[in-house]
Amino acid sequence: MYLGKHFLVELYGVDAEILKSEIDLKQIVETSLLVGKLHKVDDIYYAFKDGGVSGVVLLKESHLSFHTWSEYGYMALDIFSCGEKSEPEKAIDFIVTSLKADKVFINKEERGYIYKGGSI
Amino acid sequence: MYLGKHFLVELYGVDAEILKSEIDLKQIVETSLLVGKLHKVDDIYYAFKDGGVSGVVLLKESHLSFHTWSEYGYMALDIFSCGEKSEPEKAIDFIVTSLKADKVFINKEERGYIYKGGSI
Repeated sequence: MYLGKHFLVELYGVDAEILKSEIDLKQIVETSLLVGKLHKVDDIYYAFKDGGVSGVVLLKESHLSFHTWSEYGYMALDIFSCGEKSEPEKAIDFIVTSLKADKVFINKEERGYIYKGGSI
Repeated sequence: MYLGKHFLVELYGVDAEILKSEIDLKQIVETSLLVGKLHKVDDIYYAFKDGGVSGVVLLKESHLSFHTWSEYGYMALDIFSCGEKSEPEKAIDFIVTSLKADKVFINKEERGYIYKGGSI
């Protein structure tokens, strides 16, 4: 079995203004956590002077992170989830829809393979 | 060109006591940032009651995150770096050596493909 699943999401073609807005991005992420049944322990958001915003959210289920490059209309989003009850796919769908991304690529990685009760 | 590189690192066979220690893990991560020329904006560390510890570090270059399962001797470590001057490989080497991991698997993903100055 695997301990967690990690989604690496590339969002292209997003409006630059929203990618510069720490407040808007935080609101979208906060709602996505509710949608995806993910539970925040604490978070950090930071707006860089060059127009990019980063956020990391420590979750009971692992973490969510994002980094934006407004000049390229691009966001790198990650959700790493180890909870069986959480629905990270729904959180991703919510963020993609909210940002109206033109193109989205999702890479899902299984993390932490455990073999018969012990690690490999 | 790609905007960043993301290392997904699986560490197996690590001593359970160190994987339970928020203080030890924070010290190792802090030193790894110096070794890898990565610059912290802020961080969150959290020790779960079940013996796991999580940490997320927002970096000027993107982020570092880890999650431990002490009962399986396992840590999932990520370093996402967009800086040209940073050396995330050296930070990973430092963490792997400090934790004396038996087995290590590293998956490197390029993030944010930019085509001739615009996003795809």
